[in-house]
Amino acid sequence: MNFGKIALVGVLTSFAIGCTDIKNTEEAATTDTEQEEPLSVIFMIGDGMGVPQVSSAFYFGEETPNFKQFTSLGLSRTSSSDYLITDSAAGATAFSIGEKTYKRAIGVTTDTVAKPTILEQLQDRGYATGLISLTAITHATPAAFYAHVPDRDMHEEIAMQLANANIDFLAGGGKKFFNKRTDGINLMDTLIAKNYHIDTVDLGKVDYKKSNAFLLAEDELPNKLKGRGDFLPDATKKALDYFDAKKKPFFMMVEGSFIDWGGHAKNDTMMIREVLDFDKTIGVVLDYVEKHPNTLVVITADHETGGVSLGKYYEMGADGKQHEVKDKIQVYFQDNQHSTELVPVFAKGKGEELFRGVYENNEIYHKFMQALNNTTHEK
Amino acid sequence: MNFGKIALVGVLTSFAIGCTDIKNTEEAATTDTEQEEPLSVIFMIGDGMGVPQVSSAFYFGEETPNFKQFTSLGLSRTSSSDYLITDSAAGATAFSIGEKTYKRAIGVTTDTVAKPTILEQLQDRGYATGLISLTAITHATPAAFYAHVPDRDMHEEIAMQLANANIDFLAGGGKKFFNKRTDGINLMDTLIAKNYHIDTVDLGKVDYKKSNAFLLAEDELPNKLKGRGDFLPDATKKALDYFDAKKKPFFMMVEGSFIDWGGHAKNDTMMIREVLDFDKTIGVVLDYVEKHPNTLVVITADHETGGVSLGKYYEMGADGKQHEVKDKIQVYFQDNQHSTELVPVFAKGKGEELFRGVYENNEIYHKFMQALNNTTHEK
Repeated sequence: MNFGKIALVGVLTSFAIGCTDIKNTEEAATTDTEQEEPLSVIFMIGDGMGVPQVSSAFYFGEETPNFKQFTSLGLSRTSSSDYLITDSAAGATAFSIGEKTYKRAIGVTTDTVAKPTILEQLQDRGYATGLISLTAITHATPAAFYAHVPDRDMHEEIAMQLANANIDFLAGGGKKFFNKRTDGINLMDTLIAKNYHIDTVDLGKVDYKKSNAFLLAEDELPNKLKGRGDFLPDATKKALDYFDAKKKPFFMMVEGSFIDWGGHAKNDTMMIREVLDFDKTIGVVLDYVEKHPNTLVVITADHETGGVSLGKYYEMGADGKQHEVKDKIQVYFQDNQHSTELVPVFAKGKGEELFRGVYENNEIYHKFMQALNNTTHEK
Repeated sequence: MNFGKIALVGVLTSFAIGCTDIKNTEEAATTDTEQEEPLSVIFMIGDGMGVPQVSSAFYFGEETPNFKQFTSLGLSRTSSSDYLITDSAAGATAFSIGEKTYKRAIGVTTDTVAKPTILEQLQDRGYATGLISLTAITHATPAAFYAHVPDRDMHEEIAMQLANANIDFLAGGGKKFFNKRTDGINLMDTLIAKNYHIDTVDLGKVDYKKSNAFLLAEDELPNKLKGRGDFLPDATKKALDYFDAKKKPFFMMVEGSFIDWGGHAKNDTMMIREVLDFDKTIGVVLDYVEKHPNTLVVITADHETGGVSLGKYYEMGADGKQHEVKDKIQVYFQDNQHSTELVPVFAKGKGEELFRGVYENNEIYHKFMQALNNTTHEK
């Protein structure tokens, strides 16, 4: 029996090799250029951005939302391994390591074991990498891509791991976790020693030309209502220029962090302004993707925040009763908490078709790997 | 000037014919069978079914939802022509005539002019047609596919138009609008004279084998909590068998009517049970679509109802405080009204790729027409 089995495996292997060869030859004939160049990936996370948040861009924005440019859509189920309603740490870790884990976990599995993130694996393949956030760069969502700690609040440990993570481009807040540490270590010096050109000036004075690391606030950056300006689209544009100049494939994560914070604050104006800012940033990325066919952008959320609904807007009439206003709507918040409805996924570029459908949040990691391996494995 | 214009039209026409010929030749080489047979369309409307409602099937159902079988997803913006937040009449009319119209309008444009519906146009092309609803068959959603009246409440006029609409298969409620009319006319007799085999027995005693018209309640049918049983999947299965036996292409609309009513009632159990019933019906349709490659199913909603969110479930702890329960969630209703967040679109079968993206609700009509014309126009 054993011999028979071995023989059969032998036959199948030969057959498979034969098939692969044929496939490669066929692909080489049609997609020569793409095979030469590994896929670059831009992953955009709208923290707390459910379908109602995306919808708000279609009612409160002055221009057609960039969300309308996508034809590859999906829905992601966001539950963590322990709670049906996730937090951002477990949500981002599902994306970064491909496994659902417990709430508060950063880059570790359910048994707190560190697992290489997609960013780390791509560094090993020679990719340039980047992270952009509006929070401290050590906050849950960006941290899940380079750090491995059992709890999201371990900011100083996360900063230590970031100082050794060799990420090429950084933009966000969180200065104090580098230069005002309880252990007295000045990680700013470490970053400078590692050839980061750090800009820590005030937000309005940033010169994106000089630097590759922007730590522009002690903790988080200001939200849109408090004068953040165009930091998110500008930093994203700067990063894309930076990677272009490097002439290397890259992986970058861009977080629209304060859509979530708008929900937690039950502040409709803040939520809407943050969604529109994120949408503007999507426009910057789509311009790039259009000009660089070997690029994939995927946009999703870790969860919805606020139980948001876009409902009727009422005004008191002359009759003393409330009347619905035809051409106005109101943002309602059910709660100041996360919810667990399916969140949208938008994909464009090479491999976008993999992101169509309804799936678990951690499958997004595996879809990235499949897209990356279709272009880079053979090298 | 006029001469110039005529000449130009002539040139363009020749050019277009030339193009069509080339295209036909190319298509004929690869899709011979499909060109022979026009596309059949099953349009399923989950009334009031936003993303949170769809999501509930992923938390409260015992089996993997059939929604998970789709890879062509879209998002639809549901506003009517006059109110940002639509009703079902304007919502269904956008689907049936391809134009946004005012609230309460049935099959008429903003200036109350009747416009041929997709169902009527396909009848003219020799299609068999069918309508299944849980409401009266004269209710807004089904009515918008065959009737043309300025207001949704004109049930008796709508019933009169239905009696002359020559729809092949009917299932729903609304008996009283046919045989207990204020004008004394017995439209049941009219339907019988038009060779309908009508079944009006109690819901539990329906023999789907005999009939092609089922009017099983004076007004709406009971909801799932009140013993409707498997009417929706069973009637849908019966309709598909019926169309199969006819050996004609068909257009059928199936409405999951009470997802909306669950929202209006702010009744979470009702809403969930209705979503699961609709999902079961989707399973029946997908079985059919899989076996009949020349078929397209599109599932969407006219609007969301209830401002639903799937949030945290709390239980009182021994410490007298509310604690989140890890593995439970709660359905919250913001309101008992419609909302205007984008609603999901799911498509499978021939032409499904047309329904990917983010678009206005009335574009769904034009996408149907495009899918239908790709297979039937040349005949």
